[in-house]
Amino acid sequence: MTALREQGRLAKAASYTLATAGTARKNAALEAIARILTERRDEWLAANAEDIAAAKAAGMRPAMLDRLTLTGERISGIVEAVGQVVALPDPIGKVDKMETRPNGLIIGRRRVPLGVVAIIFEARPNVTVDAAALCLKSGNVCILRGGREAIRSNRKAAELMREALQSAGLPEDCVSLVQDVSHETANELMHLDGYVDVLIPRGGAGLIRAVAKEASVPVIRTGEGVCHIYVDGEADLDMAAEILYNAKCSRPSVCNAAECLLVQEDIAEAFLRKAVPLLDKHQVELRCDERALAILGDRAVPAQESDWDAEYDDYILAVRTVKGMEEAIDFINAHGTGHSEAIVTTNYFKAQRFLDAVDAAAVYVNASTRFTDGGEFGLGAEIGISTQKMHARGPMGLEELTSCKYVIYGEGQVR
Amino acid sequence: MTALREQGRLAKAASYTLATAGTARKNAALEAIARILTERRDEWLAANAEDIAAAKAAGMRPAMLDRLTLTGERISGIVEAVGQVVALPDPIGKVDKMETRPNGLIIGRRRVPLGVVAIIFEARPNVTVDAAALCLKSGNVCILRGGREAIRSNRKAAELMREALQSAGLPEDCVSLVQDVSHETANELMHLDGYVDVLIPRGGAGLIRAVAKEASVPVIRTGEGVCHIYVDGEADLDMAAEILYNAKCSRPSVCNAAECLLVQEDIAEAFLRKAVPLLDKHQVELRCDERALAILGDRAVPAQESDWDAEYDDYILAVRTVKGMEEAIDFINAHGTGHSEAIVTTNYFKAQRFLDAVDAAAVYVNASTRFTDGGEFGLGAEIGISTQKMHARGPMGLEELTSCKYVIYGEGQVR
Repeated sequence: MTALREQGRLAKAASYTLATAGTARKNAALEAIARILTERRDEWLAANAEDIAAAKAAGMRPAMLDRLTLTGERISGIVEAVGQVVALPDPIGKVDKMETRPNGLIIGRRRVPLGVVAIIFEARPNVTVDAAALCLKSGNVCILRGGREAIRSNRKAAELMREALQSAGLPEDCVSLVQDVSHETANELMHLDGYVDVLIPRGGAGLIRAVAKEASVPVIRTGEGVCHIYVDGEADLDMAAEILYNAKCSRPSVCNAAECLLVQEDIAEAFLRKAVPLLDKHQVELRCDERALAILGDRAVPAQESDWDAEYDDYILAVRTVKGMEEAIDFINAHGTGHSEAIVTTNYFKAQRFLDAVDAAAVYVNASTRFTDGGEFGLGAEIGISTQKMHARGPMGLEELTSCKYVIYGEGQVR
Repeated sequence: MTALREQGRLAKAASYTLATAGTARKNAALEAIARILTERRDEWLAANAEDIAAAKAAGMRPAMLDRLTLTGERISGIVEAVGQVVALPDPIGKVDKMETRPNGLIIGRRRVPLGVVAIIFEARPNVTVDAAALCLKSGNVCILRGGREAIRSNRKAAELMREALQSAGLPEDCVSLVQDVSHETANELMHLDGYVDVLIPRGGAGLIRAVAKEASVPVIRTGEGVCHIYVDGEADLDMAAEILYNAKCSRPSVCNAAECLLVQEDIAEAFLRKAVPLLDKHQVELRCDERALAILGDRAVPAQESDWDAEYDDYILAVRTVKGMEEAIDFINAHGTGHSEAIVTTNYFKAQRFLDAVDAAAVYVNASTRFTDGGEFGLGAEIGISTQKMHARGPMGLEELTSCKYVIYGEGQVR
């Protein structure tokens, strides 16, 4: 048995204990995690400093270095987030329907944990604790597989969390880290059938597609975001410009940022005259179809075919004119990733039609796509944003980390 | 583009129309299907007769031939089942939560169809219509891939249903059949990413495992059933014998039939003396551990290691003695398929503990596992019984064929 299979076996065994541990014990463990990460933050910072030094030596880009870096303040933020998870309601054990059948059987459907959740993520050490806290609260054992660059930080975080779990009377295997960060172990994790109930990749589109293609364990695809803003012929153009500016520029690296503007052709010129000065603040590159190019001249460049499916995660926007809303809807359904889509319009019927016909996790009328987020949606926290239709869609909070079990009370019934 | 990819593309296109078609139109289409299958049943019977003739010539076993055979009466049953689907409530469009956020955004979660559901099934022509009706009612386009032996019957059924759909004003591509029943097309269907939202294999364990391993589209595993009856030391032994007899013998070929008896060692002899005369009615073969073998002598045979994981689907029962309930729970969690598990006991605390600790879709106290079924659970009908934890678990009715979409009403909000 390989080290990872053995880790899977231990995780599965721990999952039976955690599934029935009860809210008080799970909260006590979360509080112990918050405490140990505070009290021994220097150990965590020291491990992180080693990661940083290695990354600098390897020539990592400043933006990536920043994501990798822990500070006292960032650790306080991480600890605070754990406290917020303590405060969230526990979804486990809720019976969401129960009835007595004609034959007297009492059949109830009870919320239970998924079991063992594996998470593959990139170089952000905060994810290690965030993900573990959400899994723990929802009764799930987690197997974490972080990026190679953060391995020392992640090892220390996992070590501290496992100590905290034990001190709270839960198996330390409720949280474990894949120690060998190789391509082989990532691949093995995708095939740990029988031990891993769900695998959630968190990271770039390349990682997610590779995992979905390769894995034999069930996968939840998250965070692929080619989001559109459709500015209708009957839009309030000032509102539309503010929404587009926010959706593109407030944080272009995230999955709910807009990548493509669709604008109704009759108002395209008037709208672009309003929107471009805002986009100029961040020198947003505009990649346009012919008609938009004719309006924008030197301010724009011609779009290539690939631009209509691109997730830039950067200050770049694809711009395309459309005859009307139905063309916009068809284009979105053909080129979107099913994440977040918005229409700006004053027309009631168009608004309703867009909500009905666009096939995405979150469909907006007159608001920025940037709101697709567990916190903004009132879920308290999120483990990712599902862009698939199976199991969960949109921001995944604690409830989305559960499954169900039918419990049946009989008195000797046979069929 | 291959014929199957083109079929996928047409299915996806039809799914956008069907998703917003509304209950009345979907019910009209179902009624048209019931009508055409009644009026033109002779065509369907004639196609089936060709399948039967070919199967007989190929030497098909009588039990399989029976499953393949349509009769006037069976068609009436199929048509009646379509009528029952008409009567079921439509899950689509229900908003199961909605709230106004502090920033004024109104965020609702609406039930929507999954989109395109592909179903791979074996040689039962009734499944063609059953599955299509459930998909249609839940707003899902279906791509059906039946067994080779039933291809003529399935082609006719699909042709008639497509005519009915058109007559009701819905795209005929809401239901389509994979025409070329080869290994290659089955494989291609498993990789129709972008067109197939969910793939449901219905059939033997071999088919299901192969599909789960191979597919890149999301899969729901159904119907793998290694179910146990645990007879506790504090059981009512007469009740336990009736439950075991029912769970093993009432229909051994189905997935909710029991395959393994676990019996507490102190009452094993007394229990087996009561149970075996019932099992004798069907000459159930008993494959026993040493202790049970010592009790049963010539009536039994020794179990092999593989018997503890076997889905017999036949009049065979594995029998194993255990020290007590915790050993039974551990054994079930290690060897079960997460389908249906039962304890027979008079002890309240053991009953509760068993319900909590056994990890399966349906966990019973003092009742036969045979009740795990959409009809028995009050879902009205089922497309299969999920044995995975993601998306759906246990009998899958119309609700389990849905996903959700967040709809957000704004008034210019930006973040």
